[in-house]
Amino acid sequence: MKRYKRDNEYSYALGMTVCFELLARRRERVRTVYVHPNINESESYFKLLNLCGSAKIDVVKDGKVFNILSPKENCFVIGEFEKYPSELSPDAPHILLVSPSGCGNVGTVMRTMLGLGFKDLALIPPCADPFSPETVRASMGAAFALNIAEFSSIDEYTDRFPDRFLYPFMLTASKSIEEVEFKKPCTLIFGNEAHGLNESFAELGQSVIIPCTRDVDSLNLSVAAAIAMYEVGKRL
Amino acid sequence: MKRYKRDNEYSYALGMTVCFELLARRRERVRTVYVHPNINESESYFKLLNLCGSAKIDVVKDGKVFNILSPKENCFVIGEFEKYPSELSPDAPHILLVSPSGCGNVGTVMRTMLGLGFKDLALIPPCADPFSPETVRASMGAAFALNIAEFSSIDEYTDRFPDRFLYPFMLTASKSIEEVEFKKPCTLIFGNEAHGLNESFAELGQSVIIPCTRDVDSLNLSVAAAIAMYEVGKRL
Repeated sequence: MKRYKRDNEYSYALGMTVCFELLARRRERVRTVYVHPNINESESYFKLLNLCGSAKIDVVKDGKVFNILSPKENCFVIGEFEKYPSELSPDAPHILLVSPSGCGNVGTVMRTMLGLGFKDLALIPPCADPFSPETVRASMGAAFALNIAEFSSIDEYTDRFPDRFLYPFMLTASKSIEEVEFKKPCTLIFGNEAHGLNESFAELGQSVIIPCTRDVDSLNLSVAAAIAMYEVGKRL
Repeated sequence: MKRYKRDNEYSYALGMTVCFELLARRRERVRTVYVHPNINESESYFKLLNLCGSAKIDVVKDGKVFNILSPKENCFVIGEFEKYPSELSPDAPHILLVSPSGCGNVGTVMRTMLGLGFKDLALIPPCADPFSPETVRASMGAAFALNIAEFSSIDEYTDRFPDRFLYPFMLTASKSIEEVEFKKPCTLIFGNEAHGLNESFAELGQSVIIPCTRDVDSLNLSVAAAIAMYEVGKRL
């Protein structure tokens, strides 16, 4: 057992809640479930054992794994899973994140997507690893319920999905989110936390701004994406 | 120089951006600005020196401070400031967070507040420290632009502000955010990340839910607060 690296074929779901989501959504990808020797033998624990038993997933009691994968966290269950590819639905709304750097932000966007009914997430690198234990944990396991696909560039994305309406969210946009008419199938595009999207994105479709006071440079990425999903989701 | 503790009279703004906000908003509270010996002598750096010079604030070049206060961070400027009390505006909309535990969440809520025009934040303990370096940094310095006050209980808050319309955001609420008519002056109330608000809050005013799919237990605190502020802000 070694620390997780991005090019590993497998990753880890840290914590009971995230493991239950993993087992509910991607049971066939689970290799092993590790439990900490100090785990409280609660109702949830026995539910976990039953689930793993009926799916013939090994449950291993081993404290060392926790020292390596979760040294600082209050975590008593770790699900090891094989990473998997997924395809985005061509008709559904997409969220496209261009070079997001924070695992916490990407995980929070995933959780918000699932909560607001968006199931398809596209990513353009360099970007936070959507399968890292940190991202998966920040998503509260929503990562397992979404279709997530990486594209090497915006061109690769638009080649793959040529007939979509693209809405880049930009501070330089001329239209506010309330003024824009969102057409289906739509892709809401958000840039990096520090730099946003570069100006060339404005040519891809109708650029959009979430109205803000002049007191801040911008909203947090996961906050901007949430407001956009909430507002667009009402109207789709 | 020791690590920050909650009962200290002073706290720290970590990083250039946050220090500029501190100097812009609360210059009179700044005790010292520390710069790292390896700081890049950029335009921002000279702007900082000029600002501190004209405000007669000592600038100290000292690497040790950074080892203590920001050992893992890519941080080259630290502003030491005296903590200060503030009063909430009785007529403005308030955000009230009941026992939020995460500094990152509270900081993100602060940044969103400033971006969406909410200036008054009430907190009920136990809660993340609104003045901790971590919260202040997550707020990107928005903490310095807001009025922030702690109340020992919801009763103390309602005694101090008896004539407000209270809107507790709860998963058990009967009305969705779109159905509720928000009256001024309003207070939007959010509970702890894990537990939400207890049922007694429903008696304080009109409880509100942000509609969600059944795929998630709830939205992230800072996401829920952002959506609420966006929606309510449009209508106030």
